[in-house]
Amino acid sequence: MHQLCIVSRRADLYRQLIEEADLPALSLTDNPNDATLVLADPPLITDRLAQFPQLRWLQSTYAGIDALTRPGLRSDYTLTNVRGIFGQLISEYVMGLLIGHQRHFGRYQAQQQQAQWQPHSYSALSDKTMVILGTGSIGQHLAGTAKALGMTVLGVNRSGECSASGFDQIIAIKDLSEALQQADVLVSVLPATAMTDNLLNADSLSHCRGTLLFNVGRGNAVCESGLIQALASGALSHAFLDVFKQEPLPAEHPFWCHPQITVTPHIAAESFPQQVMEIFKTNYLRYVEGKPMQHQIDFALGY
Amino acid sequence: MHQLCIVSRRADLYRQLIEEADLPALSLTDNPNDATLVLADPPLITDRLAQFPQLRWLQSTYAGIDALTRPGLRSDYTLTNVRGIFGQLISEYVMGLLIGHQRHFGRYQAQQQQAQWQPHSYSALSDKTMVILGTGSIGQHLAGTAKALGMTVLGVNRSGECSASGFDQIIAIKDLSEALQQADVLVSVLPATAMTDNLLNADSLSHCRGTLLFNVGRGNAVCESGLIQALASGALSHAFLDVFKQEPLPAEHPFWCHPQITVTPHIAAESFPQQVMEIFKTNYLRYVEGKPMQHQIDFALGY
Repeated sequence: MHQLCIVSRRADLYRQLIEEADLPALSLTDNPNDATLVLADPPLITDRLAQFPQLRWLQSTYAGIDALTRPGLRSDYTLTNVRGIFGQLISEYVMGLLIGHQRHFGRYQAQQQQAQWQPHSYSALSDKTMVILGTGSIGQHLAGTAKALGMTVLGVNRSGECSASGFDQIIAIKDLSEALQQADVLVSVLPATAMTDNLLNADSLSHCRGTLLFNVGRGNAVCESGLIQALASGALSHAFLDVFKQEPLPAEHPFWCHPQITVTPHIAAESFPQQVMEIFKTNYLRYVEGKPMQHQIDFALGY
Repeated sequence: MHQLCIVSRRADLYRQLIEEADLPALSLTDNPNDATLVLADPPLITDRLAQFPQLRWLQSTYAGIDALTRPGLRSDYTLTNVRGIFGQLISEYVMGLLIGHQRHFGRYQAQQQQAQWQPHSYSALSDKTMVILGTGSIGQHLAGTAKALGMTVLGVNRSGECSASGFDQIIAIKDLSEALQQADVLVSVLPATAMTDNLLNADSLSHCRGTLLFNVGRGNAVCESGLIQALASGALSHAFLDVFKQEPLPAEHPFWCHPQITVTPHIAAESFPQQVMEIFKTNYLRYVEGKPMQHQIDFALGY
């Protein structure tokens, strides 16, 4: 028998889904000493890793696993995350906020309260270029959606290689400034790694021209003072931030009341347990058969 | 020489674009008596049609030409409208407002003013079905965009025939109730004709179940009292209205302050003069050569 321990804000629901799935040779345990397998929200398990002496495989319920790849944490087990289910939700978030901004929906809402009929001019998204930092499954899904809405879409990744689909062009991260010069809309879907720390700072952002910035990856990628500076200079015209260096964003943080910043509480994508379970089931059957699992994390790369 | 008279809110810009286009055997006139051709915003020309004794062809700057197809108005000339350029803008409008509603962007905006970090749960658009009334170029473009965002899309038209592309299924207007039962989102892009008058009324809307209604076609299609009733009963959960029986919507109209109605001032799509000019140029060259023109209106059908 394989013993699975669940460590999640939604443990009750996951327990029910596991029982319904009726997987072979799998039983649930609440005792960390017995568990060889763990299904966990990364922030809840980070400080408890040492309590699981027999840990062989940990399936994350999140895409973001940076809480488990920090230097100094153990890496003597197989870590897998969830992918593929976030592209849809991230695309909704980015396109919805982008259109709302472009088409003045906030203004019309205010006008409605005054019973005021006043059109404002706008331009179509089809005239705009979106630059996406990160060309994995989320970036590719977003690229496809942005193209369906008529945009030109450039992707930025480490190599500049074009294996990712859906982009008009792929640019290597070393040529970031060249990509940023073309960005009407800039979206970071980057994971938190040493390489992405403060990648968007006063210096790199100075190549933008009235750009709309979205951060739906991880908070580490944006230098906070550099962002404020880029908004003041006009390099950025507005920033939509769903992720932050510290979450929840502290109540006294200046981002909350900055007129050019939209703050959302890390909701661009959420893990729907039913979809996480599909990935867990597939991976469990592969684990039992000794086959390579899906979405395995390289601890050195951090993704 | 063909004499063209321009009757538009944006006459200055159109005059400049016509001059730049340098079309053969075409000159501009301000004298209605001389004009054989007219480029016009329909509401501005309706009451002046009798002043153009030599009128042969009128190119509308709008898609909506109901101001020119009302009973009693002359129909002894060729009327063409503009198409194909509105699908993009209508798609932005519908998808932007839909996502904003679904993903609670208004709530997050209010929370930001209180520095409040509070996520709210949601479901993905990929679980939803959109029903589009009207399967012409605008409906087809919207269908493609909604499908790119993962939705199931049904189209409703007169015949129920499937010549329109991009839909999962086409339903005939006689089976409207069957379509409405499946609608999480209902969008009317219908033109104003005798057949579409009050098509969405208390009776037809009673087949909906918590549906989000968008009217981006013409105001005539929605019975105002029937709409209020459907919102009260829960058949509709919210209505997004860009077009009205009377425009501008009078300041005392109850729609302005209804909590389940979003009012926008007829901005879902606007005619960009550069794109109108492309259609005018193509049609002018066809007119001169005696060929059939694009987007010709049948006065009897009203579209």
